Amino acid sequence: MKRYLVEPGKKFKLSERNPEDTGDFEGGKKEGLKAIVELNEKLQTLQELLYAEGRHKVLVVLQAMDTGGKDGVIRRVFDGVNPQGVKVAGFKVPTAEELAHDFLWRVHKVTPGNGEIVIFNRSHYEDVLVVRVHNYVPEAVWSKRYEQINEFEKILAENGTTILKFFLHISKDEQKERLQARLDDPTKHWKFSLGDLEERKLWDDYQAAYEEALKKTSTVHAPWYVVPANRKWYRDLVISRVLVETLEGMKMKYPEPREPLDGVVVE
Amino acid sequence: MKRYLVEPGKKFKLSERNPEDTGDFEGGKKEGLKAIVELNEKLQTLQELLYAEGRHKVLVVLQAMDTGGKDGVIRRVFDGVNPQGVKVAGFKVPTAEELAHDFLWRVHKVTPGNGEIVIFNRSHYEDVLVVRVHNYVPEAVWSKRYEQINEFEKILAENGTTILKFFLHISKDEQKERLQARLDDPTKHWKFSLGDLEERKLWDDYQAAYEEALKKTSTVHAPWYVVPANRKWYRDLVISRVLVETLEGMKMKYPEPREPLDGVVVE
Repeated sequence: MKRYLVEPGKKFKLSERNPEDTGDFEGGKKEGLKAIVELNEKLQTLQELLYAEGRHKVLVVLQAMDTGGKDGVIRRVFDGVNPQGVKVAGFKVPTAEELAHDFLWRVHKVTPGNGEIVIFNRSHYEDVLVVRVHNYVPEAVWSKRYEQINEFEKILAENGTTILKFFLHISKDEQKERLQARLDDPTKHWKFSLGDLEERKLWDDYQAAYEEALKKTSTVHAPWYVVPANRKWYRDLVISRVLVETLEGMKMKYPEPREPLDGVVVE
Repeated sequence: MKRYLVEPGKKFKLSERNPEDTGDFEGGKKEGLKAIVELNEKLQTLQELLYAEGRHKVLVVLQAMDTGGKDGVIRRVFDGVNPQGVKVAGFKVPTAEELAHDFLWRVHKVTPGNGEIVIFNRSHYEDVLVVRVHNYVPEAVWSKRYEQINEFEKILAENGTTILKFFLHISKDEQKERLQARLDDPTKHWKFSLGDLEERKLWDDYQAAYEEALKKTSTVHAPWYVVPANRKWYRDLVISRVLVETLEGMKMKYPEPREPLDGVVVE
């Protein structure tokens, strides 16, 4: 899955990444879905082990343009994992109390503890994305945040957090289709706001903001993956693979019992 | 499912409830598992609607003797629901800060918001169960808690929270088998403590504490169900049914879009 990394310190153009890509996967959607089921079974086992061992913390950051598929990833990639060890943190418009603190304050509170996986559905990256595109704070403020984010994530990593960041990369045409599909389905109208169409007009500004964020904050300890996301099954496959490979790489094992249990009998 | 209710104000003996019961369900495990899958599909749809509508709050309390199946219920009954709208709150040994407050302080903080389902894996009921059995506080303190719990739950209910409380009822023999099975499986040893066997010796004290708690705190706005839990499939079936029937009874609908969307086209 290295092909989807944003390599730290290297040249990076978002426009050179293809949202339609299916890499060297042999097979189409049907084979892809089958592979995802197999990976999901591994993920469930690995997550239980992570929880049992209680030694590693895992932070998964999901970012995407509207309709990019963050909710879909959460439901499908993490299907069946134990909700006691896997939490989702969403970040909405900041409250007055949150705005009274630095932008990482509310984020730090919900980072994973030992044995936990926390999925960020949007994240502190919005503070260099929507905030930048709409000039919610001056450039002098947001331009310092890339470095602050790197420092913050370094602190997390040095204290035992494995950080995986995924940008779900869809094309502008694909977004059009997905927004239209939402409009055509009355059960999705509650999710829809005319403001979504206004945001779509700022597509190029967002792509530029993403490009800079991905380039400046993809580090060895917290890399970004640009996940081709026009095909939902391939998007889920890529993320499942990265997760499973990362967790397998931790060489975890079940901890010893707290006391010797040999010969113990229940009465 | 009314047969499993602890009816407010009526006589109640825990020993008269049969952990082996399968009610009038026609069929065995195979048919039961099939029914659970069907109920789970309904639950997923209803949960999405609950989240979309954002009008109701749902609190599910799970209590059981050790090995009673709380984790199993969370994994199987709630399989596939959207983790963004369904959260699990666990309650461990209280911290110093928690102990410096009333026993409901830490509980209130994690009650559900609009559109959310929160599952309590153990709960404020431990403060009249383990706390009573081990005399962690004097009787003068814990004996007042039943009424305090009722008042607290009434506040939640009057502010839009639907409360469902399930006691997973297993027999002492069934617990023996399950503890032994954990001992026989090295991948489960991390969950095991010799203290679990000490707790088992207090079985009768716990049953008495449960009986009193269930009797005193089963109310119209927050009823207790005693779920026969020796058979895991039947336990899951009962809870799935109660959940689905309760959510169906809310007559929810998808909210109107925030603005009129007729004739809107994505460009």
